[in-house]
Amino acid sequence: MKFTIALLAGDGIGPEVINEAVKVSDAIAKKFNHEITWTPALTGACAIDAVGVPYPDETHEICMKADAVLFGAIGHPKYDNDPTSPVRPEQGLLLMRKKLGLFANIRPTFTFPSLIDNSPLKRERIEGTDLVFIRELTGGIYFGEKGRKDDGETAYDTCTYTRVEVQRLAKKGFELAMTRTKKLCCVDKANVMETSRLWRETVQAMEKDYPEVEVSYEFVDAVAMRLVQWPNSYDVLITENLFGDILTDEASVISGSMGLMPSASVGEHTSLYEPIHGSYPQATGLNIANPLATVLSAAMMFEDTFGLKEEAAAIRAVVNKSLEQGIITEDLAIKDAKAYKTSEVGDWLVANL
Amino acid sequence: MKFTIALLAGDGIGPEVINEAVKVSDAIAKKFNHEITWTPALTGACAIDAVGVPYPDETHEICMKADAVLFGAIGHPKYDNDPTSPVRPEQGLLLMRKKLGLFANIRPTFTFPSLIDNSPLKRERIEGTDLVFIRELTGGIYFGEKGRKDDGETAYDTCTYTRVEVQRLAKKGFELAMTRTKKLCCVDKANVMETSRLWRETVQAMEKDYPEVEVSYEFVDAVAMRLVQWPNSYDVLITENLFGDILTDEASVISGSMGLMPSASVGEHTSLYEPIHGSYPQATGLNIANPLATVLSAAMMFEDTFGLKEEAAAIRAVVNKSLEQGIITEDLAIKDAKAYKTSEVGDWLVANL
Ligand SMILES: CC(C)[C@H](C(=O)O)[C@@H](O)C(=O)O
Ligand SMILES: CC(C)[C@H](C(=O)O)[C@@H](O)C(=O)O
Repeated sequence: MKFTIALLAGDGIGPEVINEAVKVSDAIAKKFNHEITWTPALTGACAIDAVGVPYPDETHEICMKADAVLFGAIGHPKYDNDPTSPVRPEQGLLLMRKKLGLFANIRPTFTFPSLIDNSPLKRERIEGTDLVFIRELTGGIYFGEKGRKDDGETAYDTCTYTRVEVQRLAKKGFELAMTRTKKLCCVDKANVMETSRLWRETVQAMEKDYPEVEVSYEFVDAVAMRLVQWPNSYDVLITENLFGDILTDEASVISGSMGLMPSASVGEHTSLYEPIHGSYPQATGLNIANPLATVLSAAMMFEDTFGLKEEAAAIRAVVNKSLEQGIITEDLAIKDAKAYKTSEVGDWLVANL
Repeated sequence: MKFTIALLAGDGIGPEVINEAVKVSDAIAKKFNHEITWTPALTGACAIDAVGVPYPDETHEICMKADAVLFGAIGHPKYDNDPTSPVRPEQGLLLMRKKLGLFANIRPTFTFPSLIDNSPLKRERIEGTDLVFIRELTGGIYFGEKGRKDDGETAYDTCTYTRVEVQRLAKKGFELAMTRTKKLCCVDKANVMETSRLWRETVQAMEKDYPEVEVSYEFVDAVAMRLVQWPNSYDVLITENLFGDILTDEASVISGSMGLMPSASVGEHTSLYEPIHGSYPQATGLNIANPLATVLSAAMMFEDTFGLKEEAAAIRAVVNKSLEQGIITEDLAIKDAKAYKTSEVGDWLVANL
């Protein structure tokens, strides 16, 4: 097969982790006789610096034409202290999501046996955790009308959802649940919010189309608790944009393997794959960042977008092997385990594929 | 001193835990020569059953006239499967908060040395945790305009805040921080929400009035992570209603002592004290619920509303003693520790005051 992948390295450690994912992807392509064309494009703070906007039209064109987008991370400390500044890297992220129609963000949280002790949770709480959030990504309070009234003394944000938006997101949830343990949890705040009531009634009406899926409805505050208490009691969870933002981040730290968690954003056009960790500015250029979340995002891309299960499995297998053999970056090196450099981990993966 | 306390036992285990808090409060009053008049009133599902509404006017009158309100819990499973039903116990809660002007919900999370092993977190992560959330309770998306458009196909909720609302809440935060380690964290989503930008600019402008307080600004998703990773790195946190709902619940489980966490809601009229746990319907009438969160809520009431520090300290001391001596209800009895009944714990506290 031949594919074109838009390569959005972004800011901070983005370019370093992307680099290793490219090495591994190229090695896999070679091994299985595929041909990848990488098309680099600017986004984030580096795009602001270069052309004044965080998601340039040219980048969008490249993404639209590609078969998939592989994305690093964006964000730079110079924008951190003033979230009100007119041009910010995150706007690029939001614009990219909206323009690419990436309405579903798929975020698995799972554990690696060899890394369980990195979790802040006790072993017996976290063992066996394997859940997936599907977060709505192009609606809700992120994109609703917002502004000021009364000379700036009153601010407002509007959270809006249409039934169609809920349906297409929930469909992804039901479909994913069918391929797993057939358990789906719809997370909302239906005791307070009208949008949540629309979510709940829409999902309830879809239940009959998936009679095998057992659906539960839980309030977002209850899920925030149970994620810490019994994360392994969940399988697939669907939720709206803001709740998803909070809960997926909460879920990511419980595994103890935050630096390893991949994600996919899918929707109307090209799908995008990215590690869930951020741009980690302090580590920029030090060759110490953990590339595995990006490598595993590439595995998701092979499987979900290109339909290449064997290739994806090969990537996952070599990642597991690297962990078992202690070929790890410093974030995972507890006690006095040896820490490898970002590029050394990538080299090892390529050599052992 | 003489006080009148409105007693809102509510639903589920509410009456049982309230009963023990009354016993302990009466014993303290006797010991220190105070006179308490308790005025019971209906709220929640039991009020719906009795008079058709969850927060009757008569109850409101009683609360307004009282020196403080001691509240149990509300909620009944018969309302749980349909959060869209027109009359629901939670509406009573929201109406009570609004009509009593309870704009600040104060929720400490701390640990008891003897209970640390109940936490889902590892000992070294949770040890020393002692933080307080001040959650805004009468604004935001809870009370903004909400409804449907397009024949019910589109739902919306509006989150609104005024500068004055933020100021009065933040003032509580700064003042509390001054009595503690002088660290204040303002939790928002200023990279996305306009209301959050108003929160941030308002708090920033207040910093100069409290030069000793070190203020940090963190995004809600980052706080959801750090609460699990390093809960002991926080002291006082202020936040808006919905974020507070999610984060205070998350925080409550990390301590391993959820059944012991008290809370206060304060504002324009009478202050209200309540355990943070819910109505725990399955345990209703079994005399097994943990009364300590309600007893500790009474301690907060003695200290914060009546200004009686010594009395509050005496309650806290006897609670600590009961835990050390293993006079605990079944929720805390790990392994094969003996479990006491709700009323036995109350009796023991009274006998040992
Ligand atoms: C940077 C920010 C706008 C973004 C979000 O809130 O969606 C981030 O937190 C994320 O989850 O990708
Ligand atoms: C019952 C519900 C409306 C309420 C809230 O969301 O405020 C509860 O979760 C709480 O935190 O007291």
